Amino acid sequence: MNEFDFINKIRARVAAKQGADSALSTQHSVLLQGIGDDAAIIHSTGGKDSLVTTDLLIEDIDFKRDTTTPELLGHKALAVSLSDIAAMGARARWGFVSIGLPPDVWESGFAERLYDGYFSLAELYGVELAGGDISRTTDKIVIDSMLIGECDSGRAVLRRGAAPGDQIFVTGFLGDAAAGLRLIERGARVHTASGPKPLEEHSVNRLLLRQLSPVPRVGWGILLGEQQLAGAMIDISDGLSSDLNHLCEESGVGAVIDAARIPIDQVVTEICGRRALDPLMLALHGGEDFELLFTVKPENVGKLPKRVDGVAVTWVGTIQEQSSGVRISEGARIWSLEPGGWEHFRKTKDEE
Amino acid sequence: MNEFDFINKIRARVAAKQGADSALSTQHSVLLQGIGDDAAIIHSTGGKDSLVTTDLLIEDIDFKRDTTTPELLGHKALAVSLSDIAAMGARARWGFVSIGLPPDVWESGFAERLYDGYFSLAELYGVELAGGDISRTTDKIVIDSMLIGECDSGRAVLRRGAAPGDQIFVTGFLGDAAAGLRLIERGARVHTASGPKPLEEHSVNRLLLRQLSPVPRVGWGILLGEQQLAGAMIDISDGLSSDLNHLCEESGVGAVIDAARIPIDQVVTEICGRRALDPLMLALHGGEDFELLFTVKPENVGKLPKRVDGVAVTWVGTIQEQSSGVRISEGARIWSLEPGGWEHFRKTKDEE
Repeated sequence: MNEFDFINKIRARVAAKQGADSALSTQHSVLLQGIGDDAAIIHSTGGKDSLVTTDLLIEDIDFKRDTTTPELLGHKALAVSLSDIAAMGARARWGFVSIGLPPDVWESGFAERLYDGYFSLAELYGVELAGGDISRTTDKIVIDSMLIGECDSGRAVLRRGAAPGDQIFVTGFLGDAAAGLRLIERGARVHTASGPKPLEEHSVNRLLLRQLSPVPRVGWGILLGEQQLAGAMIDISDGLSSDLNHLCEESGVGAVIDAARIPIDQVVTEICGRRALDPLMLALHGGEDFELLFTVKPENVGKLPKRVDGVAVTWVGTIQEQSSGVRISEGARIWSLEPGGWEHFRKTKDEE
Repeated sequence: MNEFDFINKIRARVAAKQGADSALSTQHSVLLQGIGDDAAIIHSTGGKDSLVTTDLLIEDIDFKRDTTTPELLGHKALAVSLSDIAAMGARARWGFVSIGLPPDVWESGFAERLYDGYFSLAELYGVELAGGDISRTTDKIVIDSMLIGECDSGRAVLRRGAAPGDQIFVTGFLGDAAAGLRLIERGARVHTASGPKPLEEHSVNRLLLRQLSPVPRVGWGILLGEQQLAGAMIDISDGLSSDLNHLCEESGVGAVIDAARIPIDQVVTEICGRRALDPLMLALHGGEDFELLFTVKPENVGKLPKRVDGVAVTWVGTIQEQSSGVRISEGARIWSLEPGGWEHFRKTKDEE
């Protein structure tokens, strides 16, 4: 059982429980949407819905201490949660960060530097740090980021809003973060200081930062939600193939995407080419790009702005009937697009 | 610097930031209270305030794998957060649990058993599980529990509401959880099956469960909040000495408590007596009792019920002017009550 199967089991259990609790629906606030989207939705009678998301970052699983900085980690902890709130079409408001640190890391001033990174990003998007917890650990760093957002009542964009005929778009470029991770694994190290660098070094550094310091698509999320342009939306954290499958599963639809239209940065293509990496595989299955994947009704496609915050969107495919499955076309060939992104508890081939 | 100093630094930084952001106060919802209480308070115009709390549980710091069970851990993760919401005088509504597990623990079915324990307690208090995150770790278990509660607007009971002359009460008994921890450290193991046991074994087991499976004072919290009987409140998680100091610091007051009135269970006294443990030290400085410590105006003392959910409250002292400090009296002697509870990053004497 991987974590997605497990989450579905827990979700079924909560749903069964909710059926029995229907008498509670006379209460002031109700949970509109719990497990199974980028964030939970709490509806209150005051005209706003609250969105809640939580993300764990674990040392040596999600990051390595010697390939990032405390500031970048603080940034990333908030960025991944901002991306979830953006994927609901909502505005982020209040953040909570819990950190567990070994004593030597605590003594090194790590926590202050982590909060420096967190606050820099929080300030940019008007997020207030509202709480958290601090604990000692024996040897590893653990960070849990929780973020509460808000949107007008009923306006949250769910994964389950896609219908056949809807057009599929993604923001920005895909595969950058996965390329960055491969470069880190091969020994590249990030330079956080600005200043002139040789072009290759500059390009590599940009990809490393896409992995270590992702920029959430906050502006796009708010626009797509508030102008009601997106029917369904998810952020690409596990990988396009996995996250498109998540969205299709929730919506009860299929999809076909066009491999040639997947936005891959020229820099990724060049750097991958020189290192025997396949940029399309990184773009399809590499996670942590934190771009937004969303669907738009055909009549609304013309209303999409060209760019938000300097970031463009790209058409990549079309929602189809569920019976068609989730597929990818490359010229005349078409094949099934299986989820190939990150799973925490997937057995490797050797273990199976 | 211990974590309390650090939290105060972060808090000052947030407060400075909030001053600069006062233009935001025209928004629908505002953060009334962030860092520095048992939970953050978000005020919305719908007539209700939301309370948010988060608690990290780290393996080999907060628990050991071989001295508890997954079910008890699931229970405790929610219980500590329920205690925080109770300490705000509020009702718990929505829970979020993030868990990080090593692969072998994941394979053992640990997560399902943890959720079993969580759901049992959640059902008891009407908490809905609304989300969370699941991650792999290299070797240690980590659990982060987040809980959102609600109360009528402006009715949350803060740490800062105590005034000189107010009377200080605690629910239940103190020192049980610390006694339970000492017994575990000396090799005692919990029996979760019911059934007849010799009296001594039964008593020991009850103390172990006070440590491993605390019962939050949910009923008392709601009553004290909704009937506006408590001026200030905190849950005793770090220890009476620490938490009373926290409450007094936030309220800008002093206090004197009467050692003879601190409620210590006869079982603790007996078991400690036979094991050369000082029950008063456990009751003063031992943490994790998750009882409520609260202040009541003299004219309201008569309105306190004798028991809620079978749990009594005990008068332990009086709030005084700040200049008096926080003190404890034992007969004619009186001395300063220094925080002696749990700190994550306190140096031991040897290290200082």
